[in-house]
Amino acid sequence: MTAVLQSYVTGRWITPDGEADPLINAVTGDEVARYPSGGMDVSGAIRYARQVGGPALRALTFPQRAAALKALAKHLTAAKDQFYPLSTATGATTRDSAIDIDGGFGTLFSYASKGTRELPNDTIVIDGPPESLGRAGTFVGQHIYASRPGVAVQINAFNFPVWGMLEKLAPAFLAGVPSIVKPAHQTAYLTELVFRAIVDSGTLPEGSVQLVCARPQALLEHLDSQDTVLFTGSAATAAKLRGHPNVVAGGVRFNAEADSLNCSILGPDATPDTPEFELYVKQLVAEMTTKAGQKCTAIRRALVPAALQDAVVEATAARLSAIVVGNPELDNVRMGALASIEQRDEVLRALKALRDSATLVFGDPESFHVEGADAERGAFLPPLLLRADDPTAAAVHEVEAFGPVSTVIGYRDLDDAITLAARGQGSLVGSLVTHDADVARRVVTAIAPFHGRILVLDRDDAKESTGHGSPLPTLVHGGPGRAGGGEELGGIRGVLHFMQRTAVQASPDMLTAITGRWTTGAARTITEVHPFRSHLEDLRIGDTIVGGPRVVTLADIGHFAEFTGDTFYAHTDPLAAAQNPLFGGIVAHGYLVVSLAAGLFVEPNPGPVLANFGVDGLRFLTPVKAGDALTVTLTAKEMTPRLSADYGEVRWDAVVSNQNDEPVATYDVLTLVAKRGSGAARA
Amino acid sequence: MTAVLQSYVTGRWITPDGEADPLINAVTGDEVARYPSGGMDVSGAIRYARQVGGPALRALTFPQRAAALKALAKHLTAAKDQFYPLSTATGATTRDSAIDIDGGFGTLFSYASKGTRELPNDTIVIDGPPESLGRAGTFVGQHIYASRPGVAVQINAFNFPVWGMLEKLAPAFLAGVPSIVKPAHQTAYLTELVFRAIVDSGTLPEGSVQLVCARPQALLEHLDSQDTVLFTGSAATAAKLRGHPNVVAGGVRFNAEADSLNCSILGPDATPDTPEFELYVKQLVAEMTTKAGQKCTAIRRALVPAALQDAVVEATAARLSAIVVGNPELDNVRMGALASIEQRDEVLRALKALRDSATLVFGDPESFHVEGADAERGAFLPPLLLRADDPTAAAVHEVEAFGPVSTVIGYRDLDDAITLAARGQGSLVGSLVTHDADVARRVVTAIAPFHGRILVLDRDDAKESTGHGSPLPTLVHGGPGRAGGGEELGGIRGVLHFMQRTAVQASPDMLTAITGRWTTGAARTITEVHPFRSHLEDLRIGDTIVGGPRVVTLADIGHFAEFTGDTFYAHTDPLAAAQNPLFGGIVAHGYLVVSLAAGLFVEPNPGPVLANFGVDGLRFLTPVKAGDALTVTLTAKEMTPRLSADYGEVRWDAVVSNQNDEPVATYDVLTLVAKRGSGAARA
Repeated sequence: MTAVLQSYVTGRWITPDGEADPLINAVTGDEVARYPSGGMDVSGAIRYARQVGGPALRALTFPQRAAALKALAKHLTAAKDQFYPLSTATGATTRDSAIDIDGGFGTLFSYASKGTRELPNDTIVIDGPPESLGRAGTFVGQHIYASRPGVAVQINAFNFPVWGMLEKLAPAFLAGVPSIVKPAHQTAYLTELVFRAIVDSGTLPEGSVQLVCARPQALLEHLDSQDTVLFTGSAATAAKLRGHPNVVAGGVRFNAEADSLNCSILGPDATPDTPEFELYVKQLVAEMTTKAGQKCTAIRRALVPAALQDAVVEATAARLSAIVVGNPELDNVRMGALASIEQRDEVLRALKALRDSATLVFGDPESFHVEGADAERGAFLPPLLLRADDPTAAAVHEVEAFGPVSTVIGYRDLDDAITLAARGQGSLVGSLVTHDADVARRVVTAIAPFHGRILVLDRDDAKESTGHGSPLPTLVHGGPGRAGGGEELGGIRGVLHFMQRTAVQASPDMLTAITGRWTTGAARTITEVHPFRSHLEDLRIGDTIVGGPRVVTLADIGHFAEFTGDTFYAHTDPLAAAQNPLFGGIVAHGYLVVSLAAGLFVEPNPGPVLANFGVDGLRFLTPVKAGDALTVTLTAKEMTPRLSADYGEVRWDAVVSNQNDEPVATYDVLTLVAKRGSGAARA
Repeated sequence: MTAVLQSYVTGRWITPDGEADPLINAVTGDEVARYPSGGMDVSGAIRYARQVGGPALRALTFPQRAAALKALAKHLTAAKDQFYPLSTATGATTRDSAIDIDGGFGTLFSYASKGTRELPNDTIVIDGPPESLGRAGTFVGQHIYASRPGVAVQINAFNFPVWGMLEKLAPAFLAGVPSIVKPAHQTAYLTELVFRAIVDSGTLPEGSVQLVCARPQALLEHLDSQDTVLFTGSAATAAKLRGHPNVVAGGVRFNAEADSLNCSILGPDATPDTPEFELYVKQLVAEMTTKAGQKCTAIRRALVPAALQDAVVEATAARLSAIVVGNPELDNVRMGALASIEQRDEVLRALKALRDSATLVFGDPESFHVEGADAERGAFLPPLLLRADDPTAAAVHEVEAFGPVSTVIGYRDLDDAITLAARGQGSLVGSLVTHDADVARRVVTAIAPFHGRILVLDRDDAKESTGHGSPLPTLVHGGPGRAGGGEELGGIRGVLHFMQRTAVQASPDMLTAITGRWTTGAARTITEVHPFRSHLEDLRIGDTIVGGPRVVTLADIGHFAEFTGDTFYAHTDPLAAAQNPLFGGIVAHGYLVVSLAAGLFVEPNPGPVLANFGVDGLRFLTPVKAGDALTVTLTAKEMTPRLSADYGEVRWDAVVSNQNDEPVATYDVLTLVAKRGSGAARA
């Protein structure tokens, strides 16, 4: 007997008492492992996540969480060779495994990178600019995101035992929310193996991730409105979970990704003599055969101009005929087995339903060659292409065969194509293959409300395209309606789903204290030494230098025009400038104003400030005329020390005013500032 | 008999057949109007919204929709005197009515303004920066928001018959989604009156708003995943609607605002000798008595340091004793009637439940003075203050009396206050009255996950504070858990809830075509005439001017340092500059680089470009050394014509490169460009 899969909960590996059912190698029919058949009480795991894992995780700042994810990604990548052999048991070819395994680790790397670059050195996220709520500026609104002190429970699908766990874990972890992973039983052995490597890596705080290899008993009863359930699987199960009283009335957050009837539209311009036609067919074949078509994102409906339906069927069939099905360990095998015999039979049932409305034009499930494996014991199917004669038949838009099955459907015109695309009632992804920009704008804007992601494929992006079926960590994954109505990933967007957005109303001083970012109107501290002489650790939010006044003369303006070549008439020609409706006379260049301001605030000697690497949100508010006297006020606004560098970023609030205290220009100055004792600081 | 309220559907006013029940003046007990008691088939209204209202609305750009909202807001404001007398029948004082009526119109104005300033001149919204998906730059991701082609069905509460309609209508309208308004029957007569003014104004496209004054039959059965239901009311009804199969399985979007047990925390620093103590008590009294406490956002739980519980009760009771209850038409009356006798009895039942765990310390529902009205016929109650002796008693955190009722609860320390706040299981709003910045940061970040909004009140913002109970159009309104788990308003955030976020993957050229904004990597058109000579209508996205090269000399750098006063050592001191870890030698000022770039791209003569009003996202990527030759490429990126001005904004993509084609600086240049034939253009 093979080993019973274990669960990692409350800080240790456990094996539930009771029976365990065999999990079967999809290729050979041999037993791979055993899965506990009884239920498991998860209330202890949930409590542990709330009381141990969550607090430990939220004690880390975003950059620290990102660093932990990066260390984990490196550890897993170094160990990845041990995961591939077991992945074969799921029926996956090496390429299929790479999508799951390397794709999962890549998602960790992506979140580590985004977490470092795009999140603050804090535990809350600032959302949008402050909103002024009163004329005097004493009452200001600011939206923030704060971590929910609950758990993220993953209920995963069988098809991506590694990626499916990590694409949910990474954003939740960055958000400060501990995860409890419940893999699908069919392929849980691979999840368990990777999870062991996660635990062994020691990179994540104890309690921040737990694994449940068993049916969790009364899971939803233990959850409340600070918890999130992330479900990937069938629409029917999603609906069952979403209807639970604790979701309906208890406020448990529920996010679902359900397989959907994703379409791929061939543009009317993409006739067989264009590169796009070949790209379309090639992609369709790839989507049918990758993971033996067991992807929530695979193309189920190939929408093509009616006049090209025959040509598409013919070209697709020709390519499919070259696909070798069989033992994924063999080099020449392009498509492995489905995940289980049950899954294969499920596909055959769906195929039967589809055949009422469509004709099978390629592949015979009763008779096909299987290379290097026992066709009777493995869960094999050939690619199966259908052709719908009635494009409006319900089955082709509603019945999903979760395997290597697609239907070619003809459309009359673009309006018809748009209508047919919407018949899927919400999809994870759609693709449009066209080289016509007008077709792209029209179709994409019309079908966007029905899709979480749309790929526009043509000769220009084909070489770098990651393909219709691949969710990417930086882009949202999920779709409306039939696709589950959820949203995951999308870079930091996916992190924020685990946090609560709250509008905070307060005085500028209080907002500064709460957000850690200086807010206009808050107190400024004019420091004894120039703030550019403070190392990162010594600088305080609100530290301020006031420089000026400096009078701008007509000679300054004329000289700047000549020197820079910016001889725009408003700076050089009094008569023409007088006609300008905004200026009504000669004005100083905006670039002159900010250049002079730098001259007023800069500390010339070597010190901790290494460089000004940028400027954000510069606005010129009042024209500067000859004779105006400029004063600049520069205030330390936000600091982001870099964990892995001997410096950090400091954002300064800059206001240039004239002699009447009118703001002339406002902007943020971005500098790199050395930490104490760094080589850089001694420069 | 009074008039039966009508519905405005499919372009006309109708009165359903059948019986109608009387609606009663909350103050006098007289009949105000009649409300149809039968159900109404709304399938025609939904179809009309989808087929007539939606397409008409989505044919408008965001600025056009914003202009329509502004026209509506002006029309209603001009007519507002006709709404106040009827509002009195709901029990509202003039101040209460202003919150509902002026507050509603103000929300329209706010959305008109936000829609003009913060949304593009288009029908889709671009979300975030492009994501590079391949090294060569031919494959790029861009998130967009597109309008859902469905309807927004409002199911409103009785307490804000005007604001409740408009705060949902405005963002949906801006999003391009038609609304169907179902007011609560108790106060529907005021909604109907305002709706008549909306229809009469002719400012909104036909079919974009409809009114249903009747019980809609089988409403949810007619909706699908492109539709949104916006519900405001009790948690129980919210749960019932959310459990409907078409929400659970059909993907209908459901947003709920439920009344919650909002808390107000008195900071430990806010002892009776501080201004904050008085502010706390004053606000508590205002929240108890405004709208006779019938606000989802009112304070139900006053969390105060245990040592101050007596002092708070005493001070609050003293202020409450000055509140005159009665006929809201009288000047000296501070609190009117509840909306109905049923509502009053509901409050009395809740009060009874609360009194099991708390002591009534002010007010007697059996005996109180009513000024200028018949206490027997009107739905009057006095303010009722309770004191909880056991702060952990369940009832005070769970039972909501939706009237002039609050409970003062003592806490031990800040941790205890945070725990008690969370006992509300999710609230629309909480407030914290403190002048201690550490208390503010600690409490706000801890209770934020349980709140949609948090007000921090102290001596600094009190004068401008809009108060605990006031949702504002620019801040999100909604809360997790018990508060319904929804989110409305928050400026443009509230608009995006009606749109689908979709990740689009395409070549830069296709993204440019789809989004209407030039994307890095897309084709540039070097125009025959300088693009600064093109009026707004003649300029095309992608029009480009290339300027340069210009060699930067050491003399230029030295001169610029001297002229501007920016003598930072990296520009002036070769030895010190050589030690700088980023530069390793003298470098040109970043401001010199952008000033010279302007000199290379500017067209000096008077023309359509009126001014450079700003710069966004300036980043210095490669240091510029003496001898480097700079070239600038300026490309028209985005155009936003102003409907109400003879110019518009043009955003230009600027890239400054050196002689090795390395990017030296990238930024967006913002200009005002005149329309053809405008006075400005002739300058």
